[in-house]
Amino acid sequence: MLVIGIDPGTAITGFGLVRETENGLEMVDFGAIRTPAGMPAEQRLLMLYQEIKQILLLHRPDGAAVEKLFFRRNVTTAIAVGQARGVALLALAEMGIPVGEYTPMAIKQAVAGWGGAEKLQVQEMVRALLQLDDIPHPDDAADALAVAICHLHSHRLTNLLDDH
Amino acid sequence: MLVIGIDPGTAITGFGLVRETENGLEMVDFGAIRTPAGMPAEQRLLMLYQEIKQILLLHRPDGAAVEKLFFRRNVTTAIAVGQARGVALLALAEMGIPVGEYTPMAIKQAVAGWGGAEKLQVQEMVRALLQLDDIPHPDDAADALAVAICHLHSHRLTNLLDDH
Repeated sequence: MLVIGIDPGTAITGFGLVRETENGLEMVDFGAIRTPAGMPAEQRLLMLYQEIKQILLLHRPDGAAVEKLFFRRNVTTAIAVGQARGVALLALAEMGIPVGEYTPMAIKQAVAGWGGAEKLQVQEMVRALLQLDDIPHPDDAADALAVAICHLHSHRLTNLLDDH
Repeated sequence: MLVIGIDPGTAITGFGLVRETENGLEMVDFGAIRTPAGMPAEQRLLMLYQEIKQILLLHRPDGAAVEKLFFRRNVTTAIAVGQARGVALLALAEMGIPVGEYTPMAIKQAVAGWGGAEKLQVQEMVRALLQLDDIPHPDDAADALAVAICHLHSHRLTNLLDDH
């Protein structure tokens, strides 16, 4: 099973693709999509949408995962992130890829074994689980890989529960 | 010049098309796109996107206008509205339709002549300016017509200023 994790933002959107094999998790691809700051919002969203579609067409993942968003401050940011998130969800829906949503706590729990884990601990566990030499950069890509791992863990758990 | 105003939301998105003619403003179409509450977010966004595209293909407006969003509370709503807004902006960008953004105060100023106008005053002015028998329903469609009118007023002003 191949899963894409997406961490959407207008300026930078992280993505990470993880495959679950018989020998564990395997990193397939990760990176970040950046859009120019001076460009009108709708043009940036179009660029983001087209780049996400290209990645989906290239890898054809079986599932997708995004973080559930909670903002305590800065509602202007929430709208901008919402716009990027909407475009990402649209691209997934158009290709019929089912989407899982996970809270930050669920992601930390799944990746680092503890819902209160620090950001760096989570990133280090992403590195270790995917047997990478270094922590993936930028942070947005590491976060995207983390939510993809969370989705695979949650799927495995669901399958185990279904067996009983 | 034909302008579409859009008032985006996940549950309901209002739209309104207004043409500026030599004899004043003319209402071309208005309505609301609704998506089922029980449907996953990405499916609702896909439905919204497809319906907006159909409206754009049918009318081929020269310009578009949306309200600038400011939320003081309820950030969860801001993300949901942001997602719907992102999909609407994407549909406009794909068709190369330029988008104007206007604050609630600018819209009230343009339509009712006063930035502090009440909602009902604005709706009544929308009715009067477009020579309609009744105030357009639902509110989302009336709001969409208001932002379209604001865009046309702002264009006319810009053209007047360019002449000097």
